[in-house]
Amino acid sequence: MRATGTRGRILSAALKLFNEGNTQAATTNHIAQALGMSPGNLHYHYRNREAIVYALYEEMISRTKLPHSKLPATIADIHEHQIHLANVYWEYRFFNRELLFLLSRDTVLKERYINENRAHRERIGIVMRGLAANGYFDIPDENVYEQLADTILLCNQFWHSHLETLGIEVDESNLAGGFRHIEGTMRPYLTRKALEELAAIGG
Amino acid sequence: MRATGTRGRILSAALKLFNEGNTQAATTNHIAQALGMSPGNLHYHYRNREAIVYALYEEMISRTKLPHSKLPATIADIHEHQIHLANVYWEYRFFNRELLFLLSRDTVLKERYINENRAHRERIGIVMRGLAANGYFDIPDENVYEQLADTILLCNQFWHSHLETLGIEVDESNLAGGFRHIEGTMRPYLTRKALEELAAIGG
Repeated sequence: MRATGTRGRILSAALKLFNEGNTQAATTNHIAQALGMSPGNLHYHYRNREAIVYALYEEMISRTKLPHSKLPATIADIHEHQIHLANVYWEYRFFNRELLFLLSRDTVLKERYINENRAHRERIGIVMRGLAANGYFDIPDENVYEQLADTILLCNQFWHSHLETLGIEVDESNLAGGFRHIEGTMRPYLTRKALEELAAIGG
Repeated sequence: MRATGTRGRILSAALKLFNEGNTQAATTNHIAQALGMSPGNLHYHYRNREAIVYALYEEMISRTKLPHSKLPATIADIHEHQIHLANVYWEYRFFNRELLFLLSRDTVLKERYINENRAHRERIGIVMRGLAANGYFDIPDENVYEQLADTILLCNQFWHSHLETLGIEVDESNLAGGFRHIEGTMRPYLTRKALEELAAIGG
């Protein structure tokens, strides 16, 4: 869902620089230079770096947000969706790495992000209840739904920071550890049906 | 364990300003002003704001870090320690709120923090294995120890940020929700003995 033409080229170059260094070190001049483009031409397409960060966030959301009609309905669906998310989060890793900083710099992004995050939490609740209804989960108490939703949001958003505060250099494999953590937290609630389905797909 | 005399007064005033606003808005001049003290006198005790943040972090650690001889050995000990931690984290709430930013600004603090965080993770592992040995936990698989340690660190460090990214204003009660989350995540592994002990203390 990347914009085509010059806008797409700007986003690709910016994403590379943001991931390799950080958003503050990568000015719009650096991004233009990486493309052999004049700063004026870049600013014609994106008025500043915040607009580029915002556009990359929109891309990321467009690739991870599932419509209600396509939410995971089986444990294999969940597993597949987690692998997809791990790939996308790695591709846009600057965003979660700098999440709190980026939100503190742009109130429009922050408002949008919070709204998306709340909607995501609601969708997680729907998925969990659907899995219970389909015989995959045995949930002893309503609070567990809230708890699993919080685990998922904590891991999605802060696993990168968690690794950093343990002094672990983040790579694609240990970043995906956040998803293994989510699966581990769900495991005590899985029914035999769910465990068999997971074993069949090597999860 | 707060320093006595002028140093203690400076830390108290700084902590109040950091909690109410943020560390960047509270300059050493503001802190001196709040105490009716000259900036020169304040700088005689703490050379800059980073030194004050560092001293407050040291205080927080001195109040939360348990020596190996005093680690929780029962489920009631754990519960009590969580309540203590919730109080201390609320008292020093600016620190976890700004954690990643503060670490990015001070490499000495970052190195110290990472070392403490790793040591904390090790102590958690010792506590969990001790609880299993004492008949409180029934742990199906070694990975669960790692997983519970990660849950505890995620909640201790990022529950504040988790609330913020859901647009929830942080107060003492919902900040303590991070500890309820930890207890909920442990619950599937608790033995009958542990559940009875928890019920007896209203946990």
